[in-house]
Amino acid sequence: MIFSLTLNWPPVIEFGPGKFSVIPDHLAECRKVFILADMPFLNRAEELSETLNAKGIRSLISTDVVPEPPFEALERLPAQVKAFGPDAVIGIGGGSAMDLAKLVSVLFTGEQRPVDIIGTNQVNRRDVRLITVATTSGTGSEVTPIAVLTDTREKLKKGVVSRYLIPDVAIVDPELTVSMPPSITASTGMDAMTHCIEAYTNRYAHPIIDNIALEGIRWIGTHLERAVKNGNDLEARTAMSLGSLYGGMCLGPVNTAGVHALAYPLGGEFKISHGVSNSVLLPFVMVHNLPECVEKYAKIAEVIGVPGGSSPETAAKKAIRKIRDISNSCNIPPDLKSLNIPESAISAMAEAAMNVTRLLDNNPRVITLEDAERIYSNAWNGILE
Amino acid sequence: MIFSLTLNWPPVIEFGPGKFSVIPDHLAECRKVFILADMPFLNRAEELSETLNAKGIRSLISTDVVPEPPFEALERLPAQVKAFGPDAVIGIGGGSAMDLAKLVSVLFTGEQRPVDIIGTNQVNRRDVRLITVATTSGTGSEVTPIAVLTDTREKLKKGVVSRYLIPDVAIVDPELTVSMPPSITASTGMDAMTHCIEAYTNRYAHPIIDNIALEGIRWIGTHLERAVKNGNDLEARTAMSLGSLYGGMCLGPVNTAGVHALAYPLGGEFKISHGVSNSVLLPFVMVHNLPECVEKYAKIAEVIGVPGGSSPETAAKKAIRKIRDISNSCNIPPDLKSLNIPESAISAMAEAAMNVTRLLDNNPRVITLEDAERIYSNAWNGILE
Repeated sequence: MIFSLTLNWPPVIEFGPGKFSVIPDHLAECRKVFILADMPFLNRAEELSETLNAKGIRSLISTDVVPEPPFEALERLPAQVKAFGPDAVIGIGGGSAMDLAKLVSVLFTGEQRPVDIIGTNQVNRRDVRLITVATTSGTGSEVTPIAVLTDTREKLKKGVVSRYLIPDVAIVDPELTVSMPPSITASTGMDAMTHCIEAYTNRYAHPIIDNIALEGIRWIGTHLERAVKNGNDLEARTAMSLGSLYGGMCLGPVNTAGVHALAYPLGGEFKISHGVSNSVLLPFVMVHNLPECVEKYAKIAEVIGVPGGSSPETAAKKAIRKIRDISNSCNIPPDLKSLNIPESAISAMAEAAMNVTRLLDNNPRVITLEDAERIYSNAWNGILE
Repeated sequence: MIFSLTLNWPPVIEFGPGKFSVIPDHLAECRKVFILADMPFLNRAEELSETLNAKGIRSLISTDVVPEPPFEALERLPAQVKAFGPDAVIGIGGGSAMDLAKLVSVLFTGEQRPVDIIGTNQVNRRDVRLITVATTSGTGSEVTPIAVLTDTREKLKKGVVSRYLIPDVAIVDPELTVSMPPSITASTGMDAMTHCIEAYTNRYAHPIIDNIALEGIRWIGTHLERAVKNGNDLEARTAMSLGSLYGGMCLGPVNTAGVHALAYPLGGEFKISHGVSNSVLLPFVMVHNLPECVEKYAKIAEVIGVPGGSSPETAAKKAIRKIRDISNSCNIPPDLKSLNIPESAISAMAEAAMNVTRLLDNNPRVITLEDAERIYSNAWNGILE
């Protein structure tokens, strides 16, 4: 096999319990730091601010994080940040906080508006240092060139993809994830699992990324239930942080596919969180993709510890069921009707999903409008095949 | 398991056939580029220079690469480079060319002398862009924070380790490796294999790096003989480039161990190339390390396609033999006496190796002076056990 790939990862990834404390080491030449933090991490942000202050570095803290950020969230924040004039931006939190920080870091100067940068390679530049600090094990945004916005008018999520969104430093500190409640641990963890599975089985799957994705599936598949059951289990948290990091490392080079495409309308229209949307849809999209993914699903079965089947087909089906079982045992809603989505919404959602061509194109098996309707319908009823 | 790690890799790794041509994309904001190239790549350097010239970027080319560079090599080069005043340095070649380019990039301003930066974290800064272009599949230097110099007085290799030596862009283009003669393909390939095996079985081995190292062992173990046999086999070259890249990715976080420590005196005293020194010593050090590495060697056996043994011990021994067989079938000298090293040199070499504490400390099993003498003696006689 002859293959090519451009790998764009942050030049520094600080992984491990306690790594939050090394953030100041990466700000040596900065004078003013803007910190955007999810509210529950305000105290950690303040602690960081004090440490920086002792080193003569000023900081401005904001907790103005809107979940699944709409365009409007980027109307007031950049102006405040511009007035402060930082030379570094730090995002502390889940995907929304980190994505917002990433977007602010390229938008605050006012040179480009949010609408200008939607799509791929539309960002012109970034002049400040950018540090992401992940507090969930799910999004992987700490290492990706991607940020996602909600277009509230079109009721659809839209992606910004640019090398200028890749942080200079990613901090992945499992201790920060210990306080996550079980429901968030579960949905963000299954989101990370989805990143790995969609990268591994991607139409544009790549040997370099396959290896990372499969490791991610292994770490998450063997530790998510433990992390949900006991949030203080630092071993399980460390494993989940690594699995999530691996998921994020896949997202730049290969990116996601059908699950994410079909999840977008759930977020845009029904405000279902990104993690829950992906978790619920994952097994149903896997069933659709099965004909193209038998060998790879069989490999997934192997790494998540499902006893081997009599044939790759049997093992592949067992993998799908095991993924659904992990999701269910973590108390993720089993189907769309449990999310109070009306069955009548299916055809509009399927039409909306068809617009996410950027991700649908990555899917290992074509998803037509009819396929999307059938997948949503199965996911609504909770029918796995 | 709870674990921590700092990952420092180049923010851009361009991997694949033809990637040499994207170098100018990574020099958009540069005006003057210093190119240090191994002589056989002078024409490629000139081709690059012309492309840059058409974009208004001036360049200065040097082929002043000394193999296993001594300190003196860094006496004249930095002055020439300073006079030119580049804002980017590109190293095109094997480990020596890339290491020299890395060293020049931090030394040419004259702020620090070579002797000042020996050791870990002694480099103060780097103000120019640095791009490494690998033309062998071996060193992995294109992605490491390491450069190695020969101390001709002490007759010993000395390492410089610094985050300022990590390039901004690493170009790994298998097409550049096609012209490598079989002997260099073999020794550099076994060097890369050594990086992976020493990282995987390291005393400070790490789950994140284990995965990369084992993939490297797999790609190299299954493709080196093909690449040696037919240099134009681009599939084998691509596999070797990836294996070598993986080896390099291990070197920052975990680094090498006993093989490299024992190889240093062969280079310093007898001018045996780095690749050959490591290749010849590898199986003999593996025998010494076996008691601490049974499970990991058994895993190596698995990934390089050695039929399973009746026990992990059997599989582990088969792995050592297979590594030796690959080396031999690539026409690497089987022992130290074939390298014309006098048997009488063993005790002095063992004493010299004992000074490489930085690497000996990484070895999975303690190597005493007596152990080193025994390993050299077995390697001299070609006695695998």
